[in-house]
Amino acid sequence: MPDRLEQLQEKLKRFVEERDWKQFHNPTQLAMDISVEASELLELFQWKLEKELPQVMKDKKSKIEEELGDVFMTCLKFANETNIDILAAAERKFLEMERKYPVEKAKGSNKKYNEL
Amino acid sequence: MPDRLEQLQEKLKRFVEERDWKQFHNPTQLAMDISVEASELLELFQWKLEKELPQVMKDKKSKIEEELGDVFMTCLKFANETNIDILAAAERKFLEMERKYPVEKAKGSNKKYNEL
Amino acid sequence: MPDRLEQLQEKLKRFVEERDWKQFHNPTQLAMDISVEASELLELFQWKLEKELPQVMKDKKSKIEEELGDVFMTCLKFANETNIDILAAAERKFLEMERKYPVEKAKGSNKKYNEL
Amino acid sequence: MPDRLEQLQEKLKRFVEERDWKQFHNPTQLAMDISVEASELLELFQWKLEKELPQVMKDKKSKIEEELGDVFMTCLKFANETNIDILAAAERKFLEMERKYPVEKAKGSNKKYNEL
Repeated sequence: MPDRLEQLQEKLKRFVEERDWKQFHNPTQLAMDISVEASELLELFQWKLEKELPQVMKDKKSKIEEELGDVFMTCLKFANETNIDILAAAERKFLEMERKYPVEKAKGSNKKYNEL
Repeated sequence: MPDRLEQLQEKLKRFVEERDWKQFHNPTQLAMDISVEASELLELFQWKLEKELPQVMKDKKSKIEEELGDVFMTCLKFANETNIDILAAAERKFLEMERKYPVEKAKGSNKKYNEL
Repeated sequence: MPDRLEQLQEKLKRFVEERDWKQFHNPTQLAMDISVEASELLELFQWKLEKELPQVMKDKKSKIEEELGDVFMTCLKFANETNIDILAAAERKFLEMERKYPVEKAKGSNKKYNEL
Repeated sequence: MPDRLEQLQEKLKRFVEERDWKQFHNPTQLAMDISVEASELLELFQWKLEKELPQVMKDKKSKIEEELGDVFMTCLKFANETNIDILAAAERKFLEMERKYPVEKAKGSNKKYNEL
């Protein structure tokens, strides 16, 4: 049985097909979409100092959830149209991150792996 | 039993904890991370005309998968740290999209819902 | 006599001072601002195919001008607050571009300098 | 006599012409370019807490100048190719900002104009 992620991807596929939107969905446009949605999430934290962030998370919780949901969906759309197994891609990157940031070197540090 | 998405989220949580990275992971920084990774995906399509895109998809397939995997993971990290159920958020947004873009109005059109 | 660019930078400086906004203007926030505004410009071209672009440029001309003006201003704000001579920085980068993309190699090519 | 900004714009124009790059420079691609460069500037501030920013500004000063120079240049390129008077566009937006954020309302506040 497909899990929830697969179900959502299926629904998205059908959504695009029913609207005949494939003609607009080249990878450049889909990557732009991810970028634009990511920026709308980022915008919610503009001009907020660190000490204000807990309050922002309360006041704008549902807006933040919406924008994150949007970014997530644009990722799924990109994956759908380009036939990428997005979960497998993320799992591979996770393994790479484990290699790049071994606990003993990376603990408590905010440096990039090539500066560690 | 947790599905693959939940398993990856769990692994990411542990990854961050073991490295004591929570101190750097405020929502602003996590949103910046999504945006920066989204841009790295976009970069792969710079200066490519529409007619070149099928070739780009072949030549850079594995790079594209990696960058999409990165964006996906940054979304999961944001969700983890802010206690957002990202799949539920995306499912809600999908329902909203269905309302905003009914088939009879949106079919074959690349207009925004407020221009339909 | 200061030129128009310098005059605008001066006005922006005064604008920020009069509003006591320096407290919110750390470089992270100013860089986020540039990114968010750049994305608003990008958004105007979403889902538009190449053949539609001349029409988009007509229909949305004034909106495009506004968004480009916004990005430009956020760059000047960043430069102001961090004491960077932005024109000198751009001129230096131009010289670097001339080195990286010599005419004989780069003519008619959309490859990156490291692929030429 | 053209000022330094106009001179740089002229040089950029010639640069693009000599390399026959106009074919790749549609407004979508030029807007992507601004966005990608803005993101590279943003990346320099990733995972840096507020208290670390003064040190970051010292350690990465020349890198920051370079990336800001890049964003500035991409703005000029966009303006060149679309025949937008970028300085005039920014000046108009400045007047709008003055209207949207009157000193008496906006002083010391980090709210958006529609929340003031």
